[in-house]
Amino acid sequence: MRILYHLPLSPGARQVRLALSEKRLPFELRAEKTWEQRPEFLALNPAGTVPVLHEETGLAIPEAPVICEYLEEAYPDNSLLGRTLGERVEVRRLVAWFDLKFAREVTDNLLGEKYFKRLMGRGTTDGTAMRNGYANLRHHLDYIGWLSESRRWLAGGSLSLADFAAAAHLSALDYIGDVDWSLNPAAKDWYAKVKSRPCFRALLNDRVTGMSPPEHYADLDF
Amino acid sequence: MRILYHLPLSPGARQVRLALSEKRLPFELRAEKTWEQRPEFLALNPAGTVPVLHEETGLAIPEAPVICEYLEEAYPDNSLLGRTLGERVEVRRLVAWFDLKFAREVTDNLLGEKYFKRLMGRGTTDGTAMRNGYANLRHHLDYIGWLSESRRWLAGGSLSLADFAAAAHLSALDYIGDVDWSLNPAAKDWYAKVKSRPCFRALLNDRVTGMSPPEHYADLDF
Repeated sequence: MRILYHLPLSPGARQVRLALSEKRLPFELRAEKTWEQRPEFLALNPAGTVPVLHEETGLAIPEAPVICEYLEEAYPDNSLLGRTLGERVEVRRLVAWFDLKFAREVTDNLLGEKYFKRLMGRGTTDGTAMRNGYANLRHHLDYIGWLSESRRWLAGGSLSLADFAAAAHLSALDYIGDVDWSLNPAAKDWYAKVKSRPCFRALLNDRVTGMSPPEHYADLDF
Repeated sequence: MRILYHLPLSPGARQVRLALSEKRLPFELRAEKTWEQRPEFLALNPAGTVPVLHEETGLAIPEAPVICEYLEEAYPDNSLLGRTLGERVEVRRLVAWFDLKFAREVTDNLLGEKYFKRLMGRGTTDGTAMRNGYANLRHHLDYIGWLSESRRWLAGGSLSLADFAAAAHLSALDYIGDVDWSLNPAAKDWYAKVKSRPCFRALLNDRVTGMSPPEHYADLDF
C-alpha cells in the first residue's frame, strides 16, 4: 500500500491528501514525528520534513509541490494542473502564492507560533508575529474572495491544485480557530464549495491530541 | 523579445537565466526594483517578486520553480528535468532542497542579511543569523560534495535544474565572498564544472553597484 507520512495540521500534507483523494489513489496515512529525526525516515527524505509519499515501487517523494508534480505525471487522469500552458502557469502561480507567500505571511505566524513551535519544543509564542499573521490573513482572504468572484475556481474554470493549496492552509488555520470567515463572504463561499467535496472528508475528521477544533470546523454549512 | 525581470543577486532569477541560456532561448534582462512596487510590474506579478518571465505572447510567469516548469513544457528540447519518473523526482527534490532548505538555512541568513536587507532598507544585519548561515553552509557544501562524488551531476547522470538551483544560490553567495571553497574539494570541483559552461558566463559578468566580487568570482580556475 502507498504510504503518506504526514502531520495532521501540516498544510503541505493536507494538499497532497486532497490531490490523492481527488485522483482516487488509495493511501495509508502515517504520522511522523519529524523532530525525532528517525533514521529510517531520513533515509526516505534527508530534509526530514513531511509530507513524504512512499510508493509501492519503493520510490520516495518528499515536499508537497514535488509530490503533486509527480502525481500529475504518474497518474494524469483527473488532471489538477490544467491543460494549456497558460492554465498551468496560473495554477502553479497560485500554488506558489499559497506555499510561499501565504505560508510566510500567515501560516508561519499563526499555526507556526501557536501549534508547531509547541509541538516541536521550539520556544514560546511571539505576539507580534501573531498580530502580523491576523493582519495579513485579511488581505489574503480578500484576494481569495476577489479571485473566486471572477472565476469558478481559484485558477479558472476547473478545480485545481490552486484550490487545494489554499484550502490546505486555510483548513489547518480553521482547525485552530484562526479564520474569521465573516470577513469575506465570497472567500467563505469558495471554501464551502471545496470543503463539501468528498476528498475533503478525511481532513474534517482529523483530531489533534489536546486541541479541539471550533464547532464550525467540520460543518459544511458553517 | 522575451523579457526577464530580475535582480542581479537573486538566486531565483539566476536559476532561470541559466535554464534560459542552456535552452538557447534569447531574452532581455531588466532589473526591477521590487521594493518600489511599480503598478505595471504588480500587474505582471501581484506577489511583487522577481524573477518574472514575460513572453512575447503576453504570458507573464512569476517564481523560479513556476518558470522552470513552464520552460520544460513550452520548450522541451534540452530537458533539464530528466526523463523517467524517478529521475524527475530526484531533480525536483533537489531543486526544492536548495530553494526551500538551503535558502532558509543559508541564503536568507547571509545574502539576505548582508545584501537584500540593506538594498530594501529593512533594518540592520543580524550577527546571529550570519553565524548560523556560515555554520549551515558547511553542512550543505558537504552534502553537495557527497552527491557529486557519487554522481556525474547533482541529480544523476545529466546536468539538470538541480545543478542550476544549487549554483544559483552559491554563485550569489560567492559574489559577496561568503563561500570558502577549501572546505570541500568535491563541491568545488562540481562548481567549477557548472561555472565553466557557456550558460554561466553572463552571471560571472554581473556587477552590483558599490559591491565588488572577490577575485576568484569570475575565475574558472579558482
